[in-house]
Amino acid sequence: MKRYVFGTPIETEAVLDKPQVEESAITALRILDDERFPLSFGLDLSDEDIVYGLGENVRGINKRGWLYTSKNADDPVHDEGKHSLYASHNFILVSGAKHVGFFFDTPGEVLFDIGYNHYDKLVVSLVDPDVEVYVIEGDSDLDVIHEFRKLIGKSYRAPKWAFGYGQCRWSYMTSDEVRDVVRKHREAGIPLDMLYLDIDYMDSYKDFTLNPQTFADFDQLVAEMKEQKIHLVPIIDAGVKVEEGYDFYEEGKKNGYFCKDENGEDFIVGVWPGDCCLPDMLNDEAREWFGNGYKFLLDKGIDGFWNDMNEPALFYSKKHLGEVTAQLGALLSGKLDINGFFGFKDTLEHISNNEEDYKSFYHNYKGQKLRHDKVHNLFGYYMTRSASEAFKRLVPEREVLMFSRSSYIGMHRYAGIWQGDNKSWWSHLLMNLKMMPSLNMCGFLYTGADLGGFGDHTTEDLMIRWLSLGIFTPLMRNHSALGTRFQEVYQFDAVEKMKGIIQLRYRLIPYLYQAYEKAINEDTMMFYPLGMVFPEDETARRVEDQLLVGDDIMIAPVYEQNAVARHVYLPEEMTCLRFRGAELIEKTVLPQGHHYVEMPLGEVCIFVRNGHMLQLAENAQSVADLDWDNLTFV
Amino acid sequence: MKRYVFGTPIETEAVLDKPQVEESAITALRILDDERFPLSFGLDLSDEDIVYGLGENVRGINKRGWLYTSKNADDPVHDEGKHSLYASHNFILVSGAKHVGFFFDTPGEVLFDIGYNHYDKLVVSLVDPDVEVYVIEGDSDLDVIHEFRKLIGKSYRAPKWAFGYGQCRWSYMTSDEVRDVVRKHREAGIPLDMLYLDIDYMDSYKDFTLNPQTFADFDQLVAEMKEQKIHLVPIIDAGVKVEEGYDFYEEGKKNGYFCKDENGEDFIVGVWPGDCCLPDMLNDEAREWFGNGYKFLLDKGIDGFWNDMNEPALFYSKKHLGEVTAQLGALLSGKLDINGFFGFKDTLEHISNNEEDYKSFYHNYKGQKLRHDKVHNLFGYYMTRSASEAFKRLVPEREVLMFSRSSYIGMHRYAGIWQGDNKSWWSHLLMNLKMMPSLNMCGFLYTGADLGGFGDHTTEDLMIRWLSLGIFTPLMRNHSALGTRFQEVYQFDAVEKMKGIIQLRYRLIPYLYQAYEKAINEDTMMFYPLGMVFPEDETARRVEDQLLVGDDIMIAPVYEQNAVARHVYLPEEMTCLRFRGAELIEKTVLPQGHHYVEMPLGEVCIFVRNGHMLQLAENAQSVADLDWDNLTFV
Repeated sequence: MKRYVFGTPIETEAVLDKPQVEESAITALRILDDERFPLSFGLDLSDEDIVYGLGENVRGINKRGWLYTSKNADDPVHDEGKHSLYASHNFILVSGAKHVGFFFDTPGEVLFDIGYNHYDKLVVSLVDPDVEVYVIEGDSDLDVIHEFRKLIGKSYRAPKWAFGYGQCRWSYMTSDEVRDVVRKHREAGIPLDMLYLDIDYMDSYKDFTLNPQTFADFDQLVAEMKEQKIHLVPIIDAGVKVEEGYDFYEEGKKNGYFCKDENGEDFIVGVWPGDCCLPDMLNDEAREWFGNGYKFLLDKGIDGFWNDMNEPALFYSKKHLGEVTAQLGALLSGKLDINGFFGFKDTLEHISNNEEDYKSFYHNYKGQKLRHDKVHNLFGYYMTRSASEAFKRLVPEREVLMFSRSSYIGMHRYAGIWQGDNKSWWSHLLMNLKMMPSLNMCGFLYTGADLGGFGDHTTEDLMIRWLSLGIFTPLMRNHSALGTRFQEVYQFDAVEKMKGIIQLRYRLIPYLYQAYEKAINEDTMMFYPLGMVFPEDETARRVEDQLLVGDDIMIAPVYEQNAVARHVYLPEEMTCLRFRGAELIEKTVLPQGHHYVEMPLGEVCIFVRNGHMLQLAENAQSVADLDWDNLTFV
Repeated sequence: MKRYVFGTPIETEAVLDKPQVEESAITALRILDDERFPLSFGLDLSDEDIVYGLGENVRGINKRGWLYTSKNADDPVHDEGKHSLYASHNFILVSGAKHVGFFFDTPGEVLFDIGYNHYDKLVVSLVDPDVEVYVIEGDSDLDVIHEFRKLIGKSYRAPKWAFGYGQCRWSYMTSDEVRDVVRKHREAGIPLDMLYLDIDYMDSYKDFTLNPQTFADFDQLVAEMKEQKIHLVPIIDAGVKVEEGYDFYEEGKKNGYFCKDENGEDFIVGVWPGDCCLPDMLNDEAREWFGNGYKFLLDKGIDGFWNDMNEPALFYSKKHLGEVTAQLGALLSGKLDINGFFGFKDTLEHISNNEEDYKSFYHNYKGQKLRHDKVHNLFGYYMTRSASEAFKRLVPEREVLMFSRSSYIGMHRYAGIWQGDNKSWWSHLLMNLKMMPSLNMCGFLYTGADLGGFGDHTTEDLMIRWLSLGIFTPLMRNHSALGTRFQEVYQFDAVEKMKGIIQLRYRLIPYLYQAYEKAINEDTMMFYPLGMVFPEDETARRVEDQLLVGDDIMIAPVYEQNAVARHVYLPEEMTCLRFRGAELIEKTVLPQGHHYVEMPLGEVCIFVRNGHMLQLAENAQSVADLDWDNLTFV
């Protein structure tokens, strides 16, 4: 492993225990002369090279053939034309004749042209020239990943109950609705461990408050849920509402804990509560203060949180909205021609998450005033870190579940992530699968996607197929957006099929949790692309729709609507375990090679590797009821 | 075949020679009692049933599991969440134990719930209760399709040269740029027959004009292109610019040929030229007049057109924009809270293609005043018909290429369609494939998608793979949008690979054109789902990513980035012909069953059916140079 320093990098604390700086010039990458960027690196790719990495991003397990940017984005449209999602995970691994990993540690914007402009060229360009570059050469992909993971430190360990099934909706509006959803699961015998609260549990979307009308009996609700072995998991947003008399805001304002504009005034942005301030998560004192905010809910017995809107998402800034309003007024009072009309549309489309807004406020980081865009990609990381550090201070004995929308490498030590506001699209089921190993490489082990899809309307068959993948991901959550079809599994004709699949999840938890713990303890992966485990097998290296999960099993989910079977490639002899719901109905030994495997709706196939075993628990309605000692080995 | 009439349907002229009305009640469908709609039909589906049809729409060849609407839409985002594209093709075919086709002939909105709310229910709901329903039972899918196609009349026949390769861009801005693009193809030996002109060839986007600066030498350009065997194919938009002194507008205004508002005034909408009127394409006289407009270009030797923006697309209506402006002014002058902000965004998002606008103007159709939304889905059809009828009047001897963005069944007799403003997405390559048989069923044989993708940035590998599919589609056009990466094949490192693939297209034209002509003459398909040809083969019935093309060959394109091989299912023994570019490099007989076939970039595999042959021409630079008599039979 070699560490190179260019310029004066802003410390990200992604790496805590740094190797010595390499004195000689970098040789693993060419420094390119590209006038558009202050610093660019290049590498030639051969046709055989696969480029893994980038954690949370669009497209394939093999990232070749696209331009990716590290620029945390609040963008719910995860289509093939996008270049970023909510995170910046600047680690890539070039796998071919050699195995070389590169980590570009900088909180600024990075562009990864991985065979986009030229299929045989990798070009990494930095918007700011200050960066630490780590180069890791190894004998295998897994070697390189292992070294990288050791470098960035142990991944967050979620409690066992966080491997249960969770139900969410934007939003369950009252405590009675929460009770009703739980009751419907319990009555139907659908296992459940978590019930998530989206933004409407709060009073006017104010952090660390409760809606006094709709969640007046919150303490009682928590107690009832506990009795039913249900963990309530509320959302926490990054922005703090500007409201006189709102304690948390007043405290932040008084102490100067909010991000400031260039004149030193609190920078006002619009998010769910309306006008808000952004806590300066990068400031040590402010971070401690924000973390202490969670005490309000910890004191009520809450032991799980999800942090949202922490790219940070800005619907508008007050300043920019004022300017736009004035512009529009002038424009609309005149005669609008077609160019005026498109100018008008363009202005409006850029009100939210506006580039200029991100350049208009400042942090106080380690005593330095830093403009936000220079450290943009750290915001969600440091918000989540503030909470994690608070949990250790405030409830050191409590195991707390936490995951975040935005992240940067380093945050993996403090929490998991979910894959953001996806949609009820079959392509997003496949993207869910593809992101798992990419995230694992970058240290994010507790992760998963919103099953059934968050935006747009789901369908029954998509729900079934997505559950059939989701039973393998550490975070298994069904979540849907306001205005979309309700998708709790009891809403569907095929509830029994779905229930069976969720039951199978519980039978798998002992296997999954040990694979997860092993990946933490040994700094390795839980989800592997086939090519990392069978590197000599050229066919395995190209498989983008199957994964190895832990050391013992392989999965090959269906991700095509109306399919009743799919092709599966076995890099070695495996035993296909066929489950109908939670019940094992068939064991078939299949030889190495290509197979066309029947996979009707409601059936799940698990491929057990030759000489390996899968342990299965008995059914249970919650993780607390799982009998970890009474396992069947198949 | 049975014809049922409900209410007083508006004549669409989709069917010219109608069978007698069935006197007895409809039995093939249940009439449902659904208070949301004035008329709904229902049918139970078994697990085995496949539902084909709906022509141009999203999702699979098998349409089960989604809600589709017939409501022609100007929407360039063809993602899985959409319910309509640019066309309404109300023909579906339920294929299982029985084979039954249903055509719902109405110009109004129709909803097809094909197993969306309940996977085992088909529900067709009509917003207006006036409809002619045709029920066609047959012994096979192809029987039903044949009967339906006979019912709706012979499909449009494109000239042979329209099977050449075409290059387009929004826009080539000058006649010299056009010359340059053609020269670069010719110099590199890349075959080319068509060069498309997007909106900038016009003077201020006015129909039937030329830009006097940038296309001053248009006559000379046409002559030069003719010499080079290139057909120039200009775009024609539906809206006519409001401008005093612009002859075509003045003529339309004087004669009352434009759509009117409720007060009988011309309804003003914003499209590319700014304020426009919409010709009343449904009015016989106006239709004749609009068609005569093409004379301006026909007289210059033009023999190809594409009709666009004919859903019709409305960026805004003048009336609605005025109202919005006033609302926004009031809103923005007050204190904007978060609800105000979202209301504001919502208002703005609905300025274009606004529902209320479509209810605010009127047609004069066969002497009847009809509100636009009642006949919305006919607009593009009648625009295109107006041109086709004009060609027959004005240049009866000339074979004219024409295709349209918007369509309805019936228009297939007058022109082809392209699959609209797709994007440079791998999923849209697959959608291109899936739409081919659906369109063929509905009579649309001359069709294809924008190769490489119109919106978003393409990649070299996507371009290669898309060309490898596009060589089989009658319309083979490379087209890209303003602001996206240039994607003429000479722009890429891999130009030689792309050139070879385009050369292979020319070698295939004799085969493709005979398959196309046969599909016209015999009222059958050119692109078949495997299940229609091998109905007893349950595996074939589920294949969604391979097609039979004509009677002799099967295709199985690669649609996954970085794939170097793919699974292919052969319903019978076939010979795999492997081409590297235009050269046949390998013939392999493969047995019936599943295969994993290597498909590196630049190679194309064609599977020839057992006992069949593929004829191949010699390479040529244009269709005019093709030697149709000197064919090699493989």
